[in-house]
Amino acid sequence: MEETNLNQTIRCIVKLGGAAITCKNELEKINEENLETVSSHLRQAMNLGSCSKQVMGMDWSKRDAVSDISSSLCDFGDQCQFNVDFSRFVVVHGAGSFGHFQASKSGVHKGGLNQPLVKAGFVATRISVTTLNLEIVRALAREGIPSIGMSPYSCGWSTSERNVASADLSGVAKAIDSGFIPVLHGDAVLDERLGCTILSGDVIIRHLAEHLRPEYVVFLVSFSRLVNSIDLLLHAPKIGLFTLHCTCLPLFHACLPINVIYKTDVSGVYDRPPTDPNAVLLREIAVDEDGKWSVVKPTPQSLNKQVEITVAAHDTTGGMVTKISEAAMIAKLGIDVYIVKAATSHSLRALRGEMRHDIPDDWLGTVIRFSR
Amino acid sequence: MEETNLNQTIRCIVKLGGAAITCKNELEKINEENLETVSSHLRQAMNLGSCSKQVMGMDWSKRDAVSDISSSLCDFGDQCQFNVDFSRFVVVHGAGSFGHFQASKSGVHKGGLNQPLVKAGFVATRISVTTLNLEIVRALAREGIPSIGMSPYSCGWSTSERNVASADLSGVAKAIDSGFIPVLHGDAVLDERLGCTILSGDVIIRHLAEHLRPEYVVFLVSFSRLVNSIDLLLHAPKIGLFTLHCTCLPLFHACLPINVIYKTDVSGVYDRPPTDPNAVLLREIAVDEDGKWSVVKPTPQSLNKQVEITVAAHDTTGGMVTKISEAAMIAKLGIDVYIVKAATSHSLRALRGEMRHDIPDDWLGTVIRFSR
Repeated sequence: MEETNLNQTIRCIVKLGGAAITCKNELEKINEENLETVSSHLRQAMNLGSCSKQVMGMDWSKRDAVSDISSSLCDFGDQCQFNVDFSRFVVVHGAGSFGHFQASKSGVHKGGLNQPLVKAGFVATRISVTTLNLEIVRALAREGIPSIGMSPYSCGWSTSERNVASADLSGVAKAIDSGFIPVLHGDAVLDERLGCTILSGDVIIRHLAEHLRPEYVVFLVSFSRLVNSIDLLLHAPKIGLFTLHCTCLPLFHACLPINVIYKTDVSGVYDRPPTDPNAVLLREIAVDEDGKWSVVKPTPQSLNKQVEITVAAHDTTGGMVTKISEAAMIAKLGIDVYIVKAATSHSLRALRGEMRHDIPDDWLGTVIRFSR
Repeated sequence: MEETNLNQTIRCIVKLGGAAITCKNELEKINEENLETVSSHLRQAMNLGSCSKQVMGMDWSKRDAVSDISSSLCDFGDQCQFNVDFSRFVVVHGAGSFGHFQASKSGVHKGGLNQPLVKAGFVATRISVTTLNLEIVRALAREGIPSIGMSPYSCGWSTSERNVASADLSGVAKAIDSGFIPVLHGDAVLDERLGCTILSGDVIIRHLAEHLRPEYVVFLVSFSRLVNSIDLLLHAPKIGLFTLHCTCLPLFHACLPINVIYKTDVSGVYDRPPTDPNAVLLREIAVDEDGKWSVVKPTPQSLNKQVEITVAAHDTTGGMVTKISEAAMIAKLGIDVYIVKAATSHSLRALRGEMRHDIPDDWLGTVIRFSR
C-alpha cells in the first residue's frame, strides 16, 4: 500500500454511527435533528480558533424541491469575512437504515458477484449508502464545513477476505491538504477472494487511523432502543475479572463471552446490559501492547461483577463488538479513542479533544487508550 | 499515468449531454421523460444478445419519500432468470442545470481555492453534480443496468491548467471487468496550477477514449432552445470551402470562424444556424492525421455555402465547439464518434453501433470518423 504524506497532522477522525444519524428502524430515514446537532458540533469543534458565529453555507442546491438557493447566497459578496479554515478532520459514517436492507436481502457481504441477485444488491446497496453520504455532506456543508464526499468504492478501496487490500489514501490526504473535510462511509466494495463484500465504516476508521495517525478518534454512537440480543454467546470461561482479550475479532466470536446490549440513553460501553439498573459505565479502558484490554475506570475494586457484552443479531457489520475491537486496535497505535453518545454536550467535548489529558468527572462516555 | 489493462475491449463510451437529461433552463431539474427513454435505450443497446424483456430493477431505494421497495423486489427470488450480462459501456454525463450555477457564481473554473467563495463554490458544485450523478445511476439501475457512480474527483482525477494530470482509470477498468457500468460526470477537481477547476464531461470522454479504446463513442445531445449566440466570432479567412482546421481548441478560438447555434430539434451538426431553413445536417465529417476535419457527406458540391458554428456564450465548458473539437480528437484515434439527438430512434441505432459501416440514409445525426 502506498505511503501517505500529509502536510500536517490530522486532528481527529470521527465516526458518525449509523444509528446516530438515521432512524435505524425506519427504512432510509435520516434523523434530521441529530444530524443537524452533530453537524453544528463538528463545526464548533473544527473551528475552535474562531469566534465568528457567521456561517457560510456551502450547500447551494435545492432542498425538498424548493429553490432556496438565493437565501443561502445572499449573505456573501462584499462582506466575505467567513472563516473557512477548519482544523483537519476526517468524517466516516455508518449506514444505519440505509444500505443494510439492500445488503442483507442480497447477501452482498457474503460475496458471489456472478449471481444476479448479489450483483443487483451491490448496485442497490451503493445507491442507498451514497444517498446517505450525499445527505450528510449537504448537512455539513450547510454548517459551512467544506465537506467532500469520497465514496470508498470510487476511491479505490477494495478488500481481500474482508480485510482492506487497497485504499487510495493519497486522495484523502490531498483533500485534507486542500482544506476540505473528506466524508467517507461504509460501502459495498470488490473483494479479491469473495468477489464483493461490505466494508464497514469501523474498518475504514481503523485503516485511516493507522495510516493518517490522527491525534484522536471519536465514535459518535446512539442506540435508539433495545434490540433482540440473541445469545450467540458463548459462555466460555472468563479471563480475569475485567480483562477481555481482544487481539482479534474472529477469536472473540469463537471463544469469548462478549455481549453488548443496545438501549436508549446509552452513553458508552457498560459493564453489563444497561437495562440493568446496576449497570456501570466503563469510563476508561486501557489497551496494552498485546492488544489486551482492561477496565481502569471505575477501578476493578468498585465493581464486583463480570463484564458482559451482547451482540445484536441483525447487524451485518458486527455492531459494538466490532467497534470495541477496532477501537482497541486504534488505541494500540497510541491514538486515544472516545466512544460517546452523539448530539450531546459530552460528544461536543470529545470532538473538541477535551478528554486528551484527564477525563472530567462530569463527562459521560468511554475512553479507550494505550497503557504506557 | 498508469497503464490500463482491460480483460476485453470496451464497446462504447456514451456521453449523456447535460441538456439532454436536464431541463437546462430550470435550476437542478431533471428531464425525467428523456432520462427514462435514454436509460431504456441504453439497456436495449447493452443487452443486444438478449431477448428477455424482463428487467431486474437495481434501485431498491425509496423514491419521493414513498417506500416502493417491495414492488421492485417481488419479481425475483425463485425465478431469477434475468440477464445481468451487459456489454461493456461507460457512461459520462454533463451537468446541464446542475452545477453550472454554483460553478459560475463562485468562479470555480478559474481556480483560487484559497478564496472562501471559490472554496464554498467547489463544495456546492460537487454537491450539485453528485446529486445529478446519483439520479442518473438510479434511473439506469431501475432499467436493470448495473450502474456504479464514479465521481471523478473521488476517483483521483485532477488537472494541470485544465488538462487531465491524473485519473485512476484502473478503477474504471476494474468496475467494467467486474460487470458494472461506470457512470462518470463533469466535476469540480483540484488543479495543480490553478488550485481547482471544472473538468468537463467532454474532456473526460476523450481521456477515457484514449486510454480505454472503445469501439465507438456516442454523444447524445439535445438543444432545447435557441440561446443567445454572441458573435465571439471571428471572421477570419475561411480555409477551403468545408474544411475547418481544429487540431487545437485554443487555436480555434483565436483565429477560426466557428459558430454553433442551439435550437429545438437539432439532430447533429449543421452547416449553418439550423434556424435557417436551408441549413443542412452534416452527416459525415472526416478527420485526417493532422486533426483537420472536412465534410464528406453531403458532398461539398451539393452545398454552396460556408460552414458556420456559433459559440453559446454562457456555457463555461465550451459547448458545441468543445464537443466537435473533442470528437475530432477521438476520431483521430480511429474511433468512430456519433453525435445524435438523445431519446430518438436515431440515438438508439447509434448506441447499438448500426452506423459502424455504412450510414443509413434514414439516419439523422453526424458521424465523425478517421479518414484512412
